[in-house]
Amino acid sequence: MRLLNFLLVAGLLCMASLTFAQRRALVFQSDFGVKDGAVGAMKGVAFAVSDDLRIFDLTHEIPAYNIWEAAYRLNQAAPYWPKGTVFVSIVDPGVGSDRKSVVLKTQSGHYVVTPDNGTLTLVAEALGIQEMREIDEAKNRLKNSNQSYTFHGRDVYAYTGARLAAGIITFEEVGPKLKNEVVRIAYQKPVVENNEIRGNIPVLDIQYGNVWTNIDGPTLARLNIQKGDKVAVKIYHNQTLAYEGTAPLVNTFSGVKEGEPLAYMNSLLNFSLGINMGDFATQHKVSSGPEWTIVLKKG
Amino acid sequence: MRLLNFLLVAGLLCMASLTFAQRRALVFQSDFGVKDGAVGAMKGVAFAVSDDLRIFDLTHEIPAYNIWEAAYRLNQAAPYWPKGTVFVSIVDPGVGSDRKSVVLKTQSGHYVVTPDNGTLTLVAEALGIQEMREIDEAKNRLKNSNQSYTFHGRDVYAYTGARLAAGIITFEEVGPKLKNEVVRIAYQKPVVENNEIRGNIPVLDIQYGNVWTNIDGPTLARLNIQKGDKVAVKIYHNQTLAYEGTAPLVNTFSGVKEGEPLAYMNSLLNFSLGINMGDFATQHKVSSGPEWTIVLKKG
Amino acid sequence: MRLLNFLLVAGLLCMASLTFAQRRALVFQSDFGVKDGAVGAMKGVAFAVSDDLRIFDLTHEIPAYNIWEAAYRLNQAAPYWPKGTVFVSIVDPGVGSDRKSVVLKTQSGHYVVTPDNGTLTLVAEALGIQEMREIDEAKNRLKNSNQSYTFHGRDVYAYTGARLAAGIITFEEVGPKLKNEVVRIAYQKPVVENNEIRGNIPVLDIQYGNVWTNIDGPTLARLNIQKGDKVAVKIYHNQTLAYEGTAPLVNTFSGVKEGEPLAYMNSLLNFSLGINMGDFATQHKVSSGPEWTIVLKKG
Repeated sequence: MRLLNFLLVAGLLCMASLTFAQRRALVFQSDFGVKDGAVGAMKGVAFAVSDDLRIFDLTHEIPAYNIWEAAYRLNQAAPYWPKGTVFVSIVDPGVGSDRKSVVLKTQSGHYVVTPDNGTLTLVAEALGIQEMREIDEAKNRLKNSNQSYTFHGRDVYAYTGARLAAGIITFEEVGPKLKNEVVRIAYQKPVVENNEIRGNIPVLDIQYGNVWTNIDGPTLARLNIQKGDKVAVKIYHNQTLAYEGTAPLVNTFSGVKEGEPLAYMNSLLNFSLGINMGDFATQHKVSSGPEWTIVLKKG
Repeated sequence: MRLLNFLLVAGLLCMASLTFAQRRALVFQSDFGVKDGAVGAMKGVAFAVSDDLRIFDLTHEIPAYNIWEAAYRLNQAAPYWPKGTVFVSIVDPGVGSDRKSVVLKTQSGHYVVTPDNGTLTLVAEALGIQEMREIDEAKNRLKNSNQSYTFHGRDVYAYTGARLAAGIITFEEVGPKLKNEVVRIAYQKPVVENNEIRGNIPVLDIQYGNVWTNIDGPTLARLNIQKGDKVAVKIYHNQTLAYEGTAPLVNTFSGVKEGEPLAYMNSLLNFSLGINMGDFATQHKVSSGPEWTIVLKKG
Repeated sequence: MRLLNFLLVAGLLCMASLTFAQRRALVFQSDFGVKDGAVGAMKGVAFAVSDDLRIFDLTHEIPAYNIWEAAYRLNQAAPYWPKGTVFVSIVDPGVGSDRKSVVLKTQSGHYVVTPDNGTLTLVAEALGIQEMREIDEAKNRLKNSNQSYTFHGRDVYAYTGARLAAGIITFEEVGPKLKNEVVRIAYQKPVVENNEIRGNIPVLDIQYGNVWTNIDGPTLARLNIQKGDKVAVKIYHNQTLAYEGTAPLVNTFSGVKEGEPLAYMNSLLNFSLGINMGDFATQHKVSSGPEWTIVLKKG
């Protein structure tokens, strides 16, 4: 009877675990596009590791080789996933060079499997570095893949990410511990001087042509700009003035007439520019990246 | 022993429910595109609600702000999903204005979480309105998201849709009941007059350049057109004649020679025009929307 | 007690099966694009068949009607999925003609549901033909879909693929057995003559503009080309010389300077050409398909 009871309780616990344990999602990002079979092959490798994995995509439309944008997109989405989520980010122009293949565990409990080439710049700042490990490819590599020099994404990153998400390996089994450092891309952080804020345009909200900045609400508040106030904006490409104008700070796009510019706080709560029912970036030939600077003052 | 028996039966029932209960799918549609992190953030929010959700996409390539096309795509796909499916459709040019955030329960048992801005026009007609509820954002909003004015898609719609699909809230817990009405976009319904049918081109089959109409088989039958008969077609953009020609009504594209026009009933069983191995819309500069009219007679 | 024991063991086995049985993935490929509701409708049909199916996409961006590319993409990804995986590939310019609707079981244990129009050319060669069956549409067709002549993808292929993946029908229940033959597209296989290798460019690595060939490592080895050696390359479009040049055979893109051409073995272990941080295909106007030939010798 005691054995029976034990088995029964064990069984019920097992069922409970099937129902209630938080599964770790496996979330892919790359610059592969979705027109060929590369993403499909990666998912096949992951599914072969565990048929119960929950597999998702952030995007595979990162512009080719654009590590900065990979860093930005990862940081944009990661905080909305539960802790334990395993991200696999593959924008890897240096594949085969001496960049390290790593897994970052953030202080928030997320994992990122990636080449350590700058992709971790923003997520390491925002979520913190708990621990870094280098992937031991002797152990963590798809079997029979060692003749292939060019598809680390499938053979090492997808495979290791899937095994980590499925609980087949622990974080410690990824490989040797590294220093708590990541390769960082230098970029202009927001500064306040002489009643002006100087910041960066890290990325466009490309679907709508909105211009996003890295200037957050508390920084903006130091100019004492309130909702409804006009903001004077200058945008520079390197040292060349690319746009100059003013826009009211509003809560919603419909806060101005169609075709008029507006300033708003975007979904990341950063200062942004748009045109109601229009495309600010295209109309004013503004783009994004480290060489784009924005200067704000009360207008 | 009775307790044991009870636990055992309860356990087996529980297992059975794991295996056999119909899960509700959560299905997203938007005009966000997939190049940035917005869709990835929405899915993260949904996965954090329940790691057992089955999450799918209709499309995120609705042209920006095109509510009509959102309405059309939703109506095209929804009937093929089982009842209980929760659709989240976010094409929301009026975000922050006074459009209501609602959940429609159709008479067919599907749910649609969306701004009530015309998106529900066609699905309400085709599947019927069982009940409409307004989302109570005081209760149904991602925690710590109240400073963000612009990403209702993630913070309200994805979050509420996920909780409804996972059974964490009931339909009644969405919020207060509304009248059984949706905001409707006016469009030309098919009419038969003087041996002519007049209808609308709601959408193109863009991948192949086929022209789809809202003229169904029973309406077409009123002109006594049989398979193999020629159909005389005029297409107007507003009042201007854009195309005039004839095409045989056939069962398959290979029913005419390569490069020749044909009429056929599409997968929604509506009258459509195509060119075998060609692109009718591009070749004849025909597009779609409320301002495009088609006139048919036996030719 | 014996009953109890039996139930208990049965229960534990049931739980074990929930945990450990390999589910069959259902993997879609098509030329539908993702801008309309077609893919969404197919997935709805599949989910309605079984809410526990694991549903994935290879790509829906096969160029319209391009059977050759469908064959190539399928063959590129299939080997990385576990045996039992059910692929549904729909590039079907001959829909409604007399091409057969079939399911191939490969010798590797994969299933492909597709029109037999050449799509199976490469996967049949690479994975072997175990058995071919024709879909009996009287039994294996979505209910109430028989008025639709044009959407076999949803009503027959997605539906049958889902039922096969879910174990609702066996392979034998697909329909009558056919000969172990598939419709094949003729293409140039690699040949070695007079210290030259002649082969085909089946496809481009379009995201990066790399040129992939069907020349594998052992074939290349017959020219005694080693890593670091220069390879003399000529590319012909039909009989016209389109490119002539030399490139070193390297392990990684960073093995040459930025902007310089290189030869490498791609992720399928075939000879390929690229430019470090550049786009070989665009720069040299090279494309892919049966009419593109490449000739290599030691340079």
